Amino acid sequence: MALLGATPRIVNIGLDLFATTLTALDVPAVHVEWRPPASGDARLAALLSRLEGRRESIDRANVVALERLTGGAPFLVDCRPAREALELPDRTVLHSGPPLAWDRFSEPVRAAILGGIRYEGWAANDDAARAMVERGAVRLAPCHHHATAGPMAGVVTPSMPVFVVENRAYGTRGHATINEGLGKVLRYGANDDSVIARLNWIATEAGPLLGAGLRALGGIDLRALMAQALRMGDEMHQRNIAATALLTRAMMPGIAAVGGRHHAVARLAEFLAGNDQFFLNVAMAAGKSMVEPASDIAGSTLVSVMARNGTEFGIRVAGCGERWFTAPVNMPRGLYFPGFGADDANPDMGDSAIVETIGLGALSMVAAPAVARFLGAGGTTEAAAMTNEMREICAGEHPHFRIPSLDDRGAPVGIDTRLVVETSITPLINTGIASRRAGVGQIGAGVVRAPLACFTAALETLASDSIQGGE
Amino acid sequence: MALLGATPRIVNIGLDLFATTLTALDVPAVHVEWRPPASGDARLAALLSRLEGRRESIDRANVVALERLTGGAPFLVDCRPAREALELPDRTVLHSGPPLAWDRFSEPVRAAILGGIRYEGWAANDDAARAMVERGAVRLAPCHHHATAGPMAGVVTPSMPVFVVENRAYGTRGHATINEGLGKVLRYGANDDSVIARLNWIATEAGPLLGAGLRALGGIDLRALMAQALRMGDEMHQRNIAATALLTRAMMPGIAAVGGRHHAVARLAEFLAGNDQFFLNVAMAAGKSMVEPASDIAGSTLVSVMARNGTEFGIRVAGCGERWFTAPVNMPRGLYFPGFGADDANPDMGDSAIVETIGLGALSMVAAPAVARFLGAGGTTEAAAMTNEMREICAGEHPHFRIPSLDDRGAPVGIDTRLVVETSITPLINTGIASRRAGVGQIGAGVVRAPLACFTAALETLASDSIQGGE
Repeated sequence: MALLGATPRIVNIGLDLFATTLTALDVPAVHVEWRPPASGDARLAALLSRLEGRRESIDRANVVALERLTGGAPFLVDCRPAREALELPDRTVLHSGPPLAWDRFSEPVRAAILGGIRYEGWAANDDAARAMVERGAVRLAPCHHHATAGPMAGVVTPSMPVFVVENRAYGTRGHATINEGLGKVLRYGANDDSVIARLNWIATEAGPLLGAGLRALGGIDLRALMAQALRMGDEMHQRNIAATALLTRAMMPGIAAVGGRHHAVARLAEFLAGNDQFFLNVAMAAGKSMVEPASDIAGSTLVSVMARNGTEFGIRVAGCGERWFTAPVNMPRGLYFPGFGADDANPDMGDSAIVETIGLGALSMVAAPAVARFLGAGGTTEAAAMTNEMREICAGEHPHFRIPSLDDRGAPVGIDTRLVVETSITPLINTGIASRRAGVGQIGAGVVRAPLACFTAALETLASDSIQGGE
Repeated sequence: MALLGATPRIVNIGLDLFATTLTALDVPAVHVEWRPPASGDARLAALLSRLEGRRESIDRANVVALERLTGGAPFLVDCRPAREALELPDRTVLHSGPPLAWDRFSEPVRAAILGGIRYEGWAANDDAARAMVERGAVRLAPCHHHATAGPMAGVVTPSMPVFVVENRAYGTRGHATINEGLGKVLRYGANDDSVIARLNWIATEAGPLLGAGLRALGGIDLRALMAQALRMGDEMHQRNIAATALLTRAMMPGIAAVGGRHHAVARLAEFLAGNDQFFLNVAMAAGKSMVEPASDIAGSTLVSVMARNGTEFGIRVAGCGERWFTAPVNMPRGLYFPGFGADDANPDMGDSAIVETIGLGALSMVAAPAVARFLGAGGTTEAAAMTNEMREICAGEHPHFRIPSLDDRGAPVGIDTRLVVETSITPLINTGIASRRAGVGQIGAGVVRAPLACFTAALETLASDSIQGGE
């Protein structure tokens, strides 16, 4: 009788239709957001449930992985030809993403690979270069197999200078080429004479000068610099102006001190002043040095690599070491330069998602609302929603990368394969958009989702490993 | 009967005690914040009321003043000795704040003036320098009388290089010396041999190199740079790291191109890399160039200058041209370096409040929550409260200086003397704290309030002018 006499108190779980209707009628109702695990997929739910039986040991492994992932101390120490820094063999071209057969590469990545071969002087034209690849005279390999992260097409050849970042907490190293700037650039699949000429200047003048300057300085603390830049509105994927300015300011004393050829310093200073994304490649090299210590930890479900080659999206998971889990890559969604649209876009490419892997980029979108607008993803509120959504699939918060507008709360970091599959929320990645045709270059910028299939594949392996482990 | 039958609905005006008590008892009450105009001061209320009769013409004048104050296009174009840039006569020493008799200057400002005289070689020691001032052989004048804004003691002598900022929208110019860095520096009243040696390096090497580099570049757009830095967490008074890095990056191509003497470029690059407050003086020169077009507009009640000499706080108001309104300066409140406390502090000093006059500094505190913490003023919430409070006394919002965490709302700008007196809210200013003893230097940083008496004095003049005007 007491129950019937009182006003009903309503809790609504799952679909919000019932609660919304009641609220519209001024009837108080509490709504609990809930979805069935793995969007109700019985097979995946069973996988998750199997892993649940190992929760304690997985959680322990993830604590170790997260500590290593966030405890790095990356220092920018050098810039040297890939031949020396990576001991990259002759007739080798690195590309972004997971391994891929030549005939499956998209047009802009192929163009960049052929451009790299011409740049090295191994072939006089694209046809000859293509023939070399097809007959195996040039070997292709992913950047990630050589401690390197390559932006967009990610092409690295032996004579290209690469930044060397040393993670002094764990003794690992990460590398990346020097950012070429905007416009027609190799990484977006342009490969004409102007592109090759710039690469030559980078190899013969800018790279050696940067290397000598960095060696004279004894290394630049990138963790401090990146933490500072995050406080200054860079998420360090689509916005790098603060980090670029801070790095320029830190490097110039060394560069000016060693710069024997007077005009070389001025040319390099001008290049640094004109390229707001210069730091991106440095962030990627730092990221690579930071994920390496967390890349092989038995039982851990945390993601150590996310990378795209323009055809496939690949991830690596700490508990599965060097194994790739791949799925067809998604198309980015975003804003296009005048005259271009979604029909012109290549599927997503590049190792730059290393930035998201360490908690920056789209995961820290709230720190860079200007980027959200630039990518067509809305303003401050939407940027905050993106970071909040990413927290749902992350194991922790970054102790060093902190977000001022959240009263210094750490960036979400440590993407957990379990949480991705359980929530069906896949990582967001900020990205540039390349034309699907060779020679055009960048046509826009936007946001892309990692495909769920990589994560379910990884989870299956993790679950079957756990059976083999006898638990 | 209906009134008595229903629950009372309560609106509380003014003191919140009644509302607070009711709320604590779970009785709903709406609280209206209200204070009597001018804190109930009948004389001031009468002044305000007299000006109210002229509201339309004052508002029109303020629209013009605000447009000029916010419409500037400051470009950093040169760095040259004050002798040339300001046509500063020999045996002249500029200081910060309103004019003051020698015997009323505080110890650190006197020490800086004497140091400036020794630096010029006009006297061999402080005693001889003091004697020159006392017998009138050295003339003292405020920086603001020479289109210049001087930080802290604000000492400028003819051979010191000054930045030249050209406001290309209005043809005005502003100037400021080169920031000396931290530690023992002239502007905080230190004047030993190390201070003089650094000033000599600035005059003979850094200044000429900066000037030649800036001339080679044809000027740097400071409005764009400052708007960018505000987006990066600088309020450009106590935090200038973003602006300094952006400026360094923009200047280095010019400096490297003209830098004949190889090591001079490296030394200057190192100086720029080691001084996070380098941009402050540039912001002040820009500010001076930006307030000048709004400094003489009949009928306007907007503030065009706020400045302190360590003894008095002085303001100028657009409607009263070059006339100073002064009152004893307040003590800053803030955080002290280890070993120092409030007893060691000098009263507030410096022309750096020009930064607040153009809407930055404490007025934009919400854009720089890190600064609020550094100054002992709290975190994000407190920083937002400071900016909100400043909106109450400002005539408008800055069209170019926008705050990203407020979805790009403009910074409050155009301090209105009427609103200050009406609300009794005086401008907040971020500031460094100098030791009250000569030779010590900076001992802390904090926030200071402008004294109300300057504003009431200005309002009295404005009101009496309005009578003379016959309306």
